Amino acid sequence: MSLAFADVETAVARIAPHAHVTPVLRSRSLDELAGCTIAFKCENFQRVGAFKFRGACNAVWALSDDVAARGVATHSSGNHGAALALAARTRGIPAHVVVPEGAVAAKVAAIRAYGASVHVCAPTQAARDEAAARVVRETGATLVHPFTNENVIAGQGTAALELLRETGELDVLIAPIGGGGLIGGSAIAAKGIFPQIRIFAAEPEGAADAFESMRRGERVADIVPDTICDGLRATFGEINFTLLREYGVEVLPVSDAETIAAMRLVFERLKIVIEPSSAVVLAAILRYRERFAGLRAGAILSGGNVDLDAMPWLTCCAR
Amino acid sequence: MSLAFADVETAVARIAPHAHVTPVLRSRSLDELAGCTIAFKCENFQRVGAFKFRGACNAVWALSDDVAARGVATHSSGNHGAALALAARTRGIPAHVVVPEGAVAAKVAAIRAYGASVHVCAPTQAARDEAAARVVRETGATLVHPFTNENVIAGQGTAALELLRETGELDVLIAPIGGGGLIGGSAIAAKGIFPQIRIFAAEPEGAADAFESMRRGERVADIVPDTICDGLRATFGEINFTLLREYGVEVLPVSDAETIAAMRLVFERLKIVIEPSSAVVLAAILRYRERFAGLRAGAILSGGNVDLDAMPWLTCCAR
Repeated sequence: MSLAFADVETAVARIAPHAHVTPVLRSRSLDELAGCTIAFKCENFQRVGAFKFRGACNAVWALSDDVAARGVATHSSGNHGAALALAARTRGIPAHVVVPEGAVAAKVAAIRAYGASVHVCAPTQAARDEAAARVVRETGATLVHPFTNENVIAGQGTAALELLRETGELDVLIAPIGGGGLIGGSAIAAKGIFPQIRIFAAEPEGAADAFESMRRGERVADIVPDTICDGLRATFGEINFTLLREYGVEVLPVSDAETIAAMRLVFERLKIVIEPSSAVVLAAILRYRERFAGLRAGAILSGGNVDLDAMPWLTCCAR
Repeated sequence: MSLAFADVETAVARIAPHAHVTPVLRSRSLDELAGCTIAFKCENFQRVGAFKFRGACNAVWALSDDVAARGVATHSSGNHGAALALAARTRGIPAHVVVPEGAVAAKVAAIRAYGASVHVCAPTQAARDEAAARVVRETGATLVHPFTNENVIAGQGTAALELLRETGELDVLIAPIGGGGLIGGSAIAAKGIFPQIRIFAAEPEGAADAFESMRRGERVADIVPDTICDGLRATFGEINFTLLREYGVEVLPVSDAETIAAMRLVFERLKIVIEPSSAVVLAAILRYRERFAGLRAGAILSGGNVDLDAMPWLTCCAR
């Protein structure tokens, strides 16, 4: 493992001209409800509406000029695709994003709007890998994986670092886990600044590959995700698994019902819009309250790109 | 009219120890959509979730010690009631809030939670006035009207003053109009700092008493409100009408459908939760776009106390 705290510090400086320093919000009523104090790092206000811009931006700006000139590529119809597209635009280089047939039209349009070339492929993992490999072969672009790329992981860690530099020492830090880029970078950053801090990962029960992997002591990669948290359906990577074990991250599974209730609490009390993949952190704090009782907690709200029509309690009813 | 810019400046200092300086947010995509640049003053992040805390706080702290000791009273089951309750608590004095039978239980509970005595009356204007008068007679409390009280109006103006001191000169300022306290205070503040600025008030078509009053040149007080904007149903006051004419405020009516669409845009682009009564400002900017084309606009988002279940596109469907 070559990734270290210095890489996160380097990332902070590298992305500073492009990324937002997002606000930290608190709510007295949520603190009372949870029985601990919570500093929420609001990545829903980040560019492209999610922390993903940090990692993508760090990866893009870490390239040498000649390598960068050939562009970057990835396969993601979600926030990482949009983030890489915008990051490439900040450097004035081409971006290629492979998206599966049937991807949400609005998301594909957003990726195009940020200036990326969109390559449509069949909706299978094999087809996506193949299409991405072909793009790389034909263009010379650098593949930027959404969560196993080390510069991406270091970039994601900048959110936790900003949070902890603003709050001062905290007892615990919690972030969502999908592929594991955010939690890995967060652990490196947090343990680097406050070695005593404990790290938790919040994971949907319907996509609990990280929880199962930690329990069994080997990476589980055959879980078929079933959760409303569209940002947390990825199977987490080998490097991410290694980071979880190295930093003693404990995974806390939550149900979708708990996530929806938490999302609603955030809407009502913090007055901000977050996506379900973010709400898992508050859901976990409330479900596993004994682990947080009386502590100073930091929680990373990862993004705010919610499809309002698709939310169970946000369903559009005819007037 | 004795109200002047100095009163708003006094209010800024008076409420500073208690009220939040709320953030100003911008969105490139909303600017593109609107054809102008918009600085949103986010009073949804204010204490009690609305600008109302500013005026209530200014009114409470403007009282002499002996008068304050007898407490304050109002009739409002909405944000002003909660705001006055909390403002009284910051000074350690009693608050009496008259609410009509059938008021939303959650709102009444919030008023009680801030420490106020709640007095329930019949749901008519006469019963409310009578109940408030009785409370004042029996307790010696000072009545703090939600929008005709001069200290309330001056306090509401502090949001616009903060906004304009942060942004520098703007061409136009827009705020919602219900009773007229916010727009009155905003006009005094804005014209005091930038005399050339034009002031617009956004009003629901279903409660267009201000629009009608300005059109006819006399205050119209017999409109029965029919709008989802629960914060804008009040009939605006005589002093408020005077202020609108004095400062040349132009009223822009919008439909509830336009308001809902604007509210949704704010959720999606700014990632913040606002109530319909706030969304009218963006609805008006989009509907009357020729008035804003190319200009630097300030817009006051008045609050975020939305009943998520009651929103047409937020209706809770059983899972």
